[in-house]
Amino acid sequence: MTKLSKSLVLRLIRYLRVLKKLKTLGIVNVFSNNLGDAIGVTPAVVRKDFSLINLMGNKRGGYNIDSLMAALREILGNREQQEVIVVGCGRIGTALMNYREFDRDGIRVVAGFDADAAKIQRDAAIPVLPMDELPAFVKANDIEVAILAVPEEAASAVFEGLIHAGIRGYLNFTSLDLKCQGHCNRQSCPRSCTVHNVNIGLELENLFYLIRLEELKILSSEELGVQNEL
Amino acid sequence: MTKLSKSLVLRLIRYLRVLKKLKTLGIVNVFSNNLGDAIGVTPAVVRKDFSLINLMGNKRGGYNIDSLMAALREILGNREQQEVIVVGCGRIGTALMNYREFDRDGIRVVAGFDADAAKIQRDAAIPVLPMDELPAFVKANDIEVAILAVPEEAASAVFEGLIHAGIRGYLNFTSLDLKCQGHCNRQSCPRSCTVHNVNIGLELENLFYLIRLEELKILSSEELGVQNEL
Repeated sequence: MTKLSKSLVLRLIRYLRVLKKLKTLGIVNVFSNNLGDAIGVTPAVVRKDFSLINLMGNKRGGYNIDSLMAALREILGNREQQEVIVVGCGRIGTALMNYREFDRDGIRVVAGFDADAAKIQRDAAIPVLPMDELPAFVKANDIEVAILAVPEEAASAVFEGLIHAGIRGYLNFTSLDLKCQGHCNRQSCPRSCTVHNVNIGLELENLFYLIRLEELKILSSEELGVQNEL
Repeated sequence: MTKLSKSLVLRLIRYLRVLKKLKTLGIVNVFSNNLGDAIGVTPAVVRKDFSLINLMGNKRGGYNIDSLMAALREILGNREQQEVIVVGCGRIGTALMNYREFDRDGIRVVAGFDADAAKIQRDAAIPVLPMDELPAFVKANDIEVAILAVPEEAASAVFEGLIHAGIRGYLNFTSLDLKCQGHCNRQSCPRSCTVHNVNIGLELENLFYLIRLEELKILSSEELGVQNEL
């Protein structure tokens, strides 16, 4: 099979999400411009993406949603409910542990972990466990993805520990940019892993600056409003 | 003045954040490779960015941090503490209202807004106010940026309301991708605005799929681990 680029895969995931929603509305066929609008790319990109994975629509009827979903799932894998842990159970971590919208994405938080003994709650619906139990829990439950919500000061050390424990995917809410690439040469990195950094402070700072520069008309207009480039 | 691209501006903001941290450590000079490492670009990109804004380092000593910071601030603006509102005071919204790390970025949440009368708290340190008071509050306090944390069902309507109220920058935590570009042709869009979407469910879903595809060795290796492309 031809290898897929990461940017293509990220678009395929977004198409699949949109198709699921369209299907629940009872819609049967979809056109490339609908999908393009929904994820913010041109219809030409949609058609090229689908031709790369050997999917053809027809000009009159567009693509059949069921066939598209089946084809996308064949490539992406038929993802069942996925389990994730939250590391760091402060305000943000606790909010994410109880995030209701995960349900509809088939994502389930199975435990939280915290270094503070006062936060441990073994009997809660989603238990909060001490950090030193994390490696055994991850192994026993085959957990691959963690949400990181510890304070910035702890982020680096906790990240190292999670890599050792075998976590491969990270959604990082700390303000420290974490990096772990396949070729990172870390002794401690047994396999490659993927980190998505969500730096809330930086995101807001970007907004403040962009608004100001736009007001001064210093931003080049062609890139204005462009985001989520895939 | 030459116009700046948005991607350049986003890098300049990140350089400035790193420089602030280096300065608090007592460091005086910095090299392009240090800055490149810190924000994940090559030293050549750093040097090119700085030459675009007429900054030159020297091969032996690198760049002087104070001069760099002064030059960056001259372009980006000397940002004082910035005020932001949170719209939707559920778990995520409340956590963000009380997010301690905003302090060090000079960001202050001045109020929350919610449609649920039971959540109104006028006397809290950060008050929670009813939605219908939002337009007047935004106007009186000259608020330009909002964090959006309402349920997906309400996102679109609330977004329209905020645009009318004059909010220009959005950090969107709902699972609905919101778009508002300068050329969006919306009757309701008085000025252009900027939206950063943080779709937590999508981010996790991406991690699950990327891990699986990497395991199957279907991802093309050169893009593996690449993220935060600026």
